[in-house]
Amino acid sequence: MKEPKTAINPKRADDFPEWFQEIVKEADLAENSPVRGCMVIKPWGYSIWEEIRNWLDLRFKETGHQNAYFPLFIPLSFMQKEAKHVKGFAKECAVVTHSRLEEKDGKLVPASPLEEPLVVRPTSETIIGEAFSRWVQSWRDLPLLINQWANVVRWEMRTRLFLRTSEFLWQEGHTVHATKEDAEKEVFAMLEIYRKLVEEVLAIPAILGEKSPGERFPGAEHTYTFEMMMQDRKALQGGTSHDLGQNFSKAFNIRYSTADGHLEYGYTTSWGVTTRLVGGVIMVHGDDNGLRLPPRIAPYHVVIVPILAKPEKEKEVMLYANLVKEELSKIPYHGRQVVAHIDSRDMRGGDKWWQWVKKGVPLIVEVGPRDLESNGLVYSRRDDPQLEKKKMGSKDFVEHVDTILDEIQKSYFTSAKEFQQKHIATDIHTFDQLKAFFTPKNEEKPETHGGFVRAKWCGDPETEKLLDPLKVSIRCIPFDQTKTEGKCILTGKRATLDVILAKSY
Amino acid sequence: MKEPKTAINPKRADDFPEWFQEIVKEADLAENSPVRGCMVIKPWGYSIWEEIRNWLDLRFKETGHQNAYFPLFIPLSFMQKEAKHVKGFAKECAVVTHSRLEEKDGKLVPASPLEEPLVVRPTSETIIGEAFSRWVQSWRDLPLLINQWANVVRWEMRTRLFLRTSEFLWQEGHTVHATKEDAEKEVFAMLEIYRKLVEEVLAIPAILGEKSPGERFPGAEHTYTFEMMMQDRKALQGGTSHDLGQNFSKAFNIRYSTADGHLEYGYTTSWGVTTRLVGGVIMVHGDDNGLRLPPRIAPYHVVIVPILAKPEKEKEVMLYANLVKEELSKIPYHGRQVVAHIDSRDMRGGDKWWQWVKKGVPLIVEVGPRDLESNGLVYSRRDDPQLEKKKMGSKDFVEHVDTILDEIQKSYFTSAKEFQQKHIATDIHTFDQLKAFFTPKNEEKPETHGGFVRAKWCGDPETEKLLDPLKVSIRCIPFDQTKTEGKCILTGKRATLDVILAKSY
Repeated sequence: MKEPKTAINPKRADDFPEWFQEIVKEADLAENSPVRGCMVIKPWGYSIWEEIRNWLDLRFKETGHQNAYFPLFIPLSFMQKEAKHVKGFAKECAVVTHSRLEEKDGKLVPASPLEEPLVVRPTSETIIGEAFSRWVQSWRDLPLLINQWANVVRWEMRTRLFLRTSEFLWQEGHTVHATKEDAEKEVFAMLEIYRKLVEEVLAIPAILGEKSPGERFPGAEHTYTFEMMMQDRKALQGGTSHDLGQNFSKAFNIRYSTADGHLEYGYTTSWGVTTRLVGGVIMVHGDDNGLRLPPRIAPYHVVIVPILAKPEKEKEVMLYANLVKEELSKIPYHGRQVVAHIDSRDMRGGDKWWQWVKKGVPLIVEVGPRDLESNGLVYSRRDDPQLEKKKMGSKDFVEHVDTILDEIQKSYFTSAKEFQQKHIATDIHTFDQLKAFFTPKNEEKPETHGGFVRAKWCGDPETEKLLDPLKVSIRCIPFDQTKTEGKCILTGKRATLDVILAKSY
Repeated sequence: MKEPKTAINPKRADDFPEWFQEIVKEADLAENSPVRGCMVIKPWGYSIWEEIRNWLDLRFKETGHQNAYFPLFIPLSFMQKEAKHVKGFAKECAVVTHSRLEEKDGKLVPASPLEEPLVVRPTSETIIGEAFSRWVQSWRDLPLLINQWANVVRWEMRTRLFLRTSEFLWQEGHTVHATKEDAEKEVFAMLEIYRKLVEEVLAIPAILGEKSPGERFPGAEHTYTFEMMMQDRKALQGGTSHDLGQNFSKAFNIRYSTADGHLEYGYTTSWGVTTRLVGGVIMVHGDDNGLRLPPRIAPYHVVIVPILAKPEKEKEVMLYANLVKEELSKIPYHGRQVVAHIDSRDMRGGDKWWQWVKKGVPLIVEVGPRDLESNGLVYSRRDDPQLEKKKMGSKDFVEHVDTILDEIQKSYFTSAKEFQQKHIATDIHTFDQLKAFFTPKNEEKPETHGGFVRAKWCGDPETEKLLDPLKVSIRCIPFDQTKTEGKCILTGKRATLDVILAKSY
């Protein structure tokens, strides 16, 4: 049998990075801009981010957080106040040095140098910390629970659409608490919201845990993370939640008077997820025909393609398509209504159909003159590898659409979970085995080897750099510890800590 | 009779600019940041912007526009492609010149100079134009209707919270059309959405018209605007809609092949409103007790202050407050539900009440132990200058809340309209009269003189600069022209064009 043709070339198994670029292009999600390392997020890609944003924003507000907006620019002197923080970000800062342009010999050049150069925010702990030092005065002001939706800039050397770009969009939560315990609770509560987003909405299984010291946020006491496995078996860090202890409150003098009149430093947290989650959705769910969007994050749940082959029936078919759309829109689906879109562009129906397959819409419906008479429709599910076209009565379809969408949502999570489970090795006990695991054998393509390794680690931060030559890192110390004893994968010493090791984005 | 004390000092009539700063502070809307000219938008101020954003975003989408996101940075070479455009913005550009920081003698300094400096976007016609030149190929791709929610930077010398800040938030629409007529239609359709926002939602009367050549957007063929009168009788430009003709499509080579195979340049438009609208709401509706928010833009419609004087009744009062809140939340109000908020902070009830007065919430409700028995409540309307506390049955209140909110909305618009009408002078015919009108007499405070002048203008762009010494400008050529003949206010020549002249922000 001849291998069936696929819409995306190359296939995942043949060249994963190139497959990723192709999906981004064919699903019209984003493109490289002429500005080094910056991307243009195209409407379809942006609308996925909007769904993520809407979902999170509601949860942040439900848990008492308020949105605010802080300056894009950070004075150099602020960056310097937390020593580890500035060290972590100094190598990737876009710096504004002038406030005007002037023409010189027919060429535009920067003019009017600033007294103090400004950094374009790579993250906002410092500029927000300064504001919080004024906002927080008394225990009555606590907890202070703030979130910001913003763009940030980290000057990356090697960039990749959605995964690593010099500018990206994100949310960053920043909070102040009266006690260490309250701050800890916040950090875990936010991580739990992220887990729900990723597992229940994006249908991606997540491994939750703490970052090792080598991977900790610059200036944090503890960084918590969730790690997702992509289809090339590499890890993508989905987002982080930082317990900043009193590091930033001491650097920025965030103090409050207690009920009995003492002055105390607050405990701060910060936490964020970025547009790279869109990259995660692509790399976990995408197949050789394009993107596959979990229904709960899909901007459209159903796309209706009217078959307008017979001009005399055109009006009737459009009316019918609209009727189906209207009925679908009445069905509630996880806090939204079912979103149906009619694609009435002047194009061949088959071309449209394939476009929506590539864009990952969960359900594609076709209605034509014949369906009119039978009150039926033809639909295909994006989770069906054969993309089989099935007939159904339109009333029946409307009645079952929420169930079908739930099935698709579940099937994506289940296959991602199976894939993840299959590729977590637990039988690696020595550094040599580890090295072998992460080194492709002769006949292996780089995209079909490796995975996550769950092994023991002694916990000595000095040992982490032994992993550098393998281009592997400790992704996290997972929360679900077995507490058994074994040998450290890096040193051979006795160790009880379970860690997850992997190559990562 | 002694003058009643007011919550905001100074009063509007005594020192309008200082009154404005005080409202911003007392209503907790925003604050100056340590970064020159940049503001921090605090939660209450940001939530007003969120309401504006939600309202507009829905209308943009309803009219076929899609959101996307383009880079923050613009290469210098892009800025140069449209000559007038670069001239208009060169004097206020933040320029990124380095991509790293390094320590030198214990001081952080910019390092790694960029090959080509980058401008932080003051507006995005150029960077989006470049993308559109790739997105637009055929007539089938048109119209291309894109919107972006973003931050922009214009390095202003004199800044003022919300009204003029170096960084501000806005939306910028960018569209491409096949014909001049289609582009014109778009420009007016978007202006009409803005008019609806401003008049029907923000309750601010707007004067719609075209900008004179001296006030046109750099690179536009026509700029349309809506101008609002503040309570100091100055004008605030609320937003603009630009017909860019083929200027940018020629600069960036945005061409499409027509149905019969020709290559044509597209016609582009752009349009935007910014966070300065929040400043407009303050300066139009605010009174000497603080902000007054039109219900349709208020983040909370009703704030419930529970009176918790008797500890033994506390639980019951809170239960009752929650019941009232729940019932209110069931009432639909202009595409939202009524939003009620219970202020349960550990503070004196009277202090809370005044805070919400200053924050401009349309309705403040108090419930205490006595109301429990009578199933009643006490409420005050923010549009009542006496802020009288009235009793009402809670069932009655819930039943009428939408009507009361509509009344408040209407009363704000009506008084703003009356104020505006009263201060448009139509009897100014000579330059001397104009000069006298805009010069405070001895006994007059600067905040209680002047206004808008509706007069004739000959239309010669060269004459506009005659207004500079008066610090007055042509705000717009209003759409509603009388078409009568008169004398040009600047030159005394015969003229038929009506223009609006004013001092402005």
